[in-house]
Amino acid sequence: MTTHAVESEGPPLSLLEKAAKVLSAFQTAQPRLTLTEVVQRSGLPRSSAHRILDQLVQQRWLEREGRDYRLGIGMLELGAMAAHHNRLRRAALPHLHALHESTGHLVHLTVLDGTEVVYLERIGGSHDHGVPSRVGGRQPAYCTAAGKAILAFSDATLVEPVIRHGLRPRTPRTITRPESFRGELARVRERGVAFDYEEGFQGVFCVAAPLRGAGRAIASISVCGNGAHRELERIAPAVLGCARSVWQAMFGPGRRTRKRTESTPPLPTAGVPQPAMDNMMSWLRFSEWM
Amino acid sequence: MTTHAVESEGPPLSLLEKAAKVLSAFQTAQPRLTLTEVVQRSGLPRSSAHRILDQLVQQRWLEREGRDYRLGIGMLELGAMAAHHNRLRRAALPHLHALHESTGHLVHLTVLDGTEVVYLERIGGSHDHGVPSRVGGRQPAYCTAAGKAILAFSDATLVEPVIRHGLRPRTPRTITRPESFRGELARVRERGVAFDYEEGFQGVFCVAAPLRGAGRAIASISVCGNGAHRELERIAPAVLGCARSVWQAMFGPGRRTRKRTESTPPLPTAGVPQPAMDNMMSWLRFSEWM
Repeated sequence: MTTHAVESEGPPLSLLEKAAKVLSAFQTAQPRLTLTEVVQRSGLPRSSAHRILDQLVQQRWLEREGRDYRLGIGMLELGAMAAHHNRLRRAALPHLHALHESTGHLVHLTVLDGTEVVYLERIGGSHDHGVPSRVGGRQPAYCTAAGKAILAFSDATLVEPVIRHGLRPRTPRTITRPESFRGELARVRERGVAFDYEEGFQGVFCVAAPLRGAGRAIASISVCGNGAHRELERIAPAVLGCARSVWQAMFGPGRRTRKRTESTPPLPTAGVPQPAMDNMMSWLRFSEWM
Repeated sequence: MTTHAVESEGPPLSLLEKAAKVLSAFQTAQPRLTLTEVVQRSGLPRSSAHRILDQLVQQRWLEREGRDYRLGIGMLELGAMAAHHNRLRRAALPHLHALHESTGHLVHLTVLDGTEVVYLERIGGSHDHGVPSRVGGRQPAYCTAAGKAILAFSDATLVEPVIRHGLRPRTPRTITRPESFRGELARVRERGVAFDYEEGFQGVFCVAAPLRGAGRAIASISVCGNGAHRELERIAPAVLGCARSVWQAMFGPGRRTRKRTESTPPLPTAGVPQPAMDNMMSWLRFSEWM
């Protein structure tokens, strides 16, 4: 059972690194794992995994029920405190609630982490369980409105790794060609908001606005629905307004977004075709090639 | 700086226990801590705290910004997964949303942990920030409707430690005498729901229903507002109905709550005065002695 031993390669792992490996094994759709499953997923020797599982149960980071282990209330409490202390989330929360109440749709607060977006907050009602997002969950950035809104206002050092990592088709509408993706980001800069019409999940439509002042985006706010893409066009201004309000709540009115003509950052868009489009509808017609 | 060293007393702490102490230091209202503050709060030697902080930053369980540390996105992700995997929360979520939407008030899902309640979920709108609760947060069980609803349908082995731990006054309306508290739990059993009229926080009113079949409570569902106690009387049946729906979602209709006359469990209520009260209004008049 120790054939997966990672201890035999490279420098020995610290107990904390091993504990992180064990806990990562629970970052899966399966809530309960046996010792054998933890060994398989973590690559740790069985004796080591067993000892660490015991210690994690003592800390209440895991709970044991018979032969099964699952994430415990201690981990829920620490994670909830991490969310509670997150300055961005705290500043955004009342505005996200207001956006949800005014639109009736599912609202997300999202940050970019490498090539993925992570949902810091998700505010929805009983009808929004069809959208496969959750707080702390991840999605590839390239196929979400939330990710495109951030990437469009990011340096090439963040955008290029996303493209290099691969624009794999998730639905027939996913943008998979690098030049098309760069063109899409240019259109997001043009419009100020990003749309996702079933690029990540069939039946899921989103609109996202970057959280930014005059420069790079630090996060995005998005509204999702299913099958309501005309509705999303209508509420795009509200999403933009929400993003501006959150920015001001964090940095004060002195750093509010400047007029749109001034706010387009000097990003590496040279060579990207930017078709002339004067209003949202013409953009939407153009985007039908997706 | 090592005068607080806990390593010199008792068996040496494992690295994981030390890491838990460091992380616990962040379970406070203050989001950012310096090394010195972590040393003070954790009781660990400075060198040990520094080494562990470094390792926690590597795992992204903490983030470092200049001289400050704060809980990181890795911890948020693990905690969010713990919440996502929680079977009770998953079963309850659509019903909690429906209860929030039908009442317009803040909704909680709560479990008992020792003498405290822990909020597993909190569903509210932009107007509910006045209620000082948060997911993963704790409150003393005795002064919350959520706690009383669980304790009323719990064994004496859970109730007596709460009383022994002390019924400290939080507001002028907190129930602080043990015999009064036992009487209150008897009234909760009688009514099937618990009320909190500013017993924990001034201006906060709640109603809670236990999550149970015919036996002990495993959790509670509560609705809170501020200054709307007539409203809470009106929606008590909806809270009870929500609790029944969640119970059925978890265990199936076969284990639904039996008729109320049958469902009163054989709890140690002997000797507790149970004033005759036929309806909620008479109970509310009686409760005015609080």
